[in-house]
Amino acid sequence: MKVEMVSVGSELLKGKINTDIAYLGEKLDSIGLAIDRETTVGDDREKIESILQETLNRSDIIITTGGLGPTFDDLTREVMAKVLKKKLVFDREVMHQIAAHFANRDLEMPKNNERQAYIIEGAKVIPNKVGTAPGMIVERKTKAGSKSKVQKASIIIMLPGPPREMKPMVEEVVLPYLKEKYERKILKKSVLHISGLTESAVYEKIQEVVEIERRMEGGILRFSILAHLARIDVEISGEGENELLVDEMLHKARQEIYDCLEDYIYGEGEDTLESVVGGLLLSKRLTLAVAESCTGGLIGDRITDVAGSSVYFKEGIVAYSNEAKVRVLGVKEDTVNEFGAVSRESALEMANGIQRISETDIGLATTGIAGPTGGTAKKPVGLVYVALVWPKMGLEICKEFHFSGKRREIKESTVINGLDILRKALMGKG
Amino acid sequence: MKVEMVSVGSELLKGKINTDIAYLGEKLDSIGLAIDRETTVGDDREKIESILQETLNRSDIIITTGGLGPTFDDLTREVMAKVLKKKLVFDREVMHQIAAHFANRDLEMPKNNERQAYIIEGAKVIPNKVGTAPGMIVERKTKAGSKSKVQKASIIIMLPGPPREMKPMVEEVVLPYLKEKYERKILKKSVLHISGLTESAVYEKIQEVVEIERRMEGGILRFSILAHLARIDVEISGEGENELLVDEMLHKARQEIYDCLEDYIYGEGEDTLESVVGGLLLSKRLTLAVAESCTGGLIGDRITDVAGSSVYFKEGIVAYSNEAKVRVLGVKEDTVNEFGAVSRESALEMANGIQRISETDIGLATTGIAGPTGGTAKKPVGLVYVALVWPKMGLEICKEFHFSGKRREIKESTVINGLDILRKALMGKG
Repeated sequence: MKVEMVSVGSELLKGKINTDIAYLGEKLDSIGLAIDRETTVGDDREKIESILQETLNRSDIIITTGGLGPTFDDLTREVMAKVLKKKLVFDREVMHQIAAHFANRDLEMPKNNERQAYIIEGAKVIPNKVGTAPGMIVERKTKAGSKSKVQKASIIIMLPGPPREMKPMVEEVVLPYLKEKYERKILKKSVLHISGLTESAVYEKIQEVVEIERRMEGGILRFSILAHLARIDVEISGEGENELLVDEMLHKARQEIYDCLEDYIYGEGEDTLESVVGGLLLSKRLTLAVAESCTGGLIGDRITDVAGSSVYFKEGIVAYSNEAKVRVLGVKEDTVNEFGAVSRESALEMANGIQRISETDIGLATTGIAGPTGGTAKKPVGLVYVALVWPKMGLEICKEFHFSGKRREIKESTVINGLDILRKALMGKG
Repeated sequence: MKVEMVSVGSELLKGKINTDIAYLGEKLDSIGLAIDRETTVGDDREKIESILQETLNRSDIIITTGGLGPTFDDLTREVMAKVLKKKLVFDREVMHQIAAHFANRDLEMPKNNERQAYIIEGAKVIPNKVGTAPGMIVERKTKAGSKSKVQKASIIIMLPGPPREMKPMVEEVVLPYLKEKYERKILKKSVLHISGLTESAVYEKIQEVVEIERRMEGGILRFSILAHLARIDVEISGEGENELLVDEMLHKARQEIYDCLEDYIYGEGEDTLESVVGGLLLSKRLTLAVAESCTGGLIGDRITDVAGSSVYFKEGIVAYSNEAKVRVLGVKEDTVNEFGAVSRESALEMANGIQRISETDIGLATTGIAGPTGGTAKKPVGLVYVALVWPKMGLEICKEFHFSGKRREIKESTVINGLDILRKALMGKG
């Protein structure tokens, strides 16, 4: 089954990041369909026509995003109708939905939006619950096994470009539709998230176990390693005919990776460091407060991205000035004067201070030089201390890091490593 | 000049977001070159060969990203050599650079990396200052005006996929190279950033002024409106033969937009709300402290993304629990009990509290319900209060918002609107 994707929009070739490709790729992958090729073209009638014609001739399923809006430069609907040699017909039901969209917002409907009620003849309409442009699925009869190079594609799916409008359509209509039609093989995936190791260190530890493709009785296992900022993912996918066998194969492979990496793996799939840490705090009924200097609030931001975090996260203090470190957190003036605000000593006093004043179980603190200026030969940009105190457990940890990169990367690396120190402490491996 | 881009990497069709397209699109646009089409294919020999052959036959400049790594599934180098009918030759200088990369990091060089020292015969090497894969520029003589459909492309540029490695190559080598070869027309752009208005409200205010294309004596002006989360951009680009005339044209158009939108425009180009606010605080020698509840530290994070922010940003308190709001910020228990932590009254007491204890000029506070749970009929998810106090100016502001979207979107909308309230206050329009 050859699937192609076509993204339409001049802005995508001039600086706007297209996240639709990654989203659709991941969703299709989850039901065992792979995108063979993706092409991006601008809002130009001829260019759109030429790529649509090409894809129709060589692929089985075509998914387009973009170009369904109400204005003059939204051309996908019209050009698709032309290459499919079908009419655009006015759809009363769709018109009604578009009108309701505006009425619900107390807005007058611009005349232009009427264009969006024209649907390719015979298409199945995918309602848009967020915006006005409906999606469409066009099914065409093609001769099975025909070698003709003329318009071989049998399914054409047209979606709006904005992710907020496109994603619900994919989840509610497109995936169930494709799943029913095409999913035959069982395809499952595990993604393990690792922190505290570089990509090559991960590879060294697991190289005996991973291989591109391992053919087994139950089917095929595939491994890959992906590097992110301060995080490595190991992806294992299993493909086969029988769900039980695929599950078993995946389970064994996961176990092999866990045996090699143990606690470096902090979670799987949708897990984030902050959600894992949150789960540990919740289950152990512990509370946390943070004192941030170089991270400026980013640790608090991440922790509070988890719904329900108010149960364990009590307080954060961004003590950006030395004066605030002393006044609010109770860091001794002598400590700041003798060792500097960016020092092991100050970090530990910050962590102790926030734990004490917030009366939480654990205090976590960061102090460092995020740059681009402010570094010295002795304390260069990228030098960061992360401290954790947990008095009931008699725990006082402080780690020194030397990060490279820009200000934002140094902040993010600090946060990931800080959350990982907290995770390990909560697991009793601090 | 027909430019095509080819992105190589299976991960890009399975869930990894490709930011290289947007980056290259923007950079090429800045020197007057437009990407005609972008295609993404996986790490598959046949698929790469087929798209490279197609692009060579129809375009003048081809830029590839990805597939230059050291492992078995990095195929761009080899396949490109094959379609160009050129040899790969060992380059001593490149080998030396790769070996130095590992030596500098006290690492042993894996045998695999030797592959990266093989260069397409006659190619100009683009050194990689961050990683190991060198980029390449291949120039080919093609008959001027030849209508032959065989390998028309005269410039082939191959870049690594990781943005950290690719971007410096583009900025230091590729852009200057293409600029010298192709830039003839003057092309300039202004991007105005707007907050506090919806896309349609912006359009309503400027519709008399903007048009897709305005042909003038100095050249052509183009306008576009792009919507982001809680931010709208108006982009004006000017194209012409004479730099002075283009500048003048752009200047006039900017003025027209400013006349329509006035203070809704908070900045241009690289400006962010936090950098603009930082500039205002700096120039007025004012200091700021923030008290955050629903934003969890995100305001502090944004403010401290600006280098040098320690001059004006003194302190942040993330008072996530009611107890912390009372104990640390001095919000009255009665206020929390009577009006709730998410109320105009609590927001104002939080802002007053943080201003008082930090002894800064201005205190900014947020409190709200970010969801997905915690909402009630009277106080639904998305209800947010932002308060600002500035005692020396006798200023006390509190605004109520009703945001929609997910937890993260509500946090981000709050931050943008909070920073905008601060900006307006600093401009005397609070």
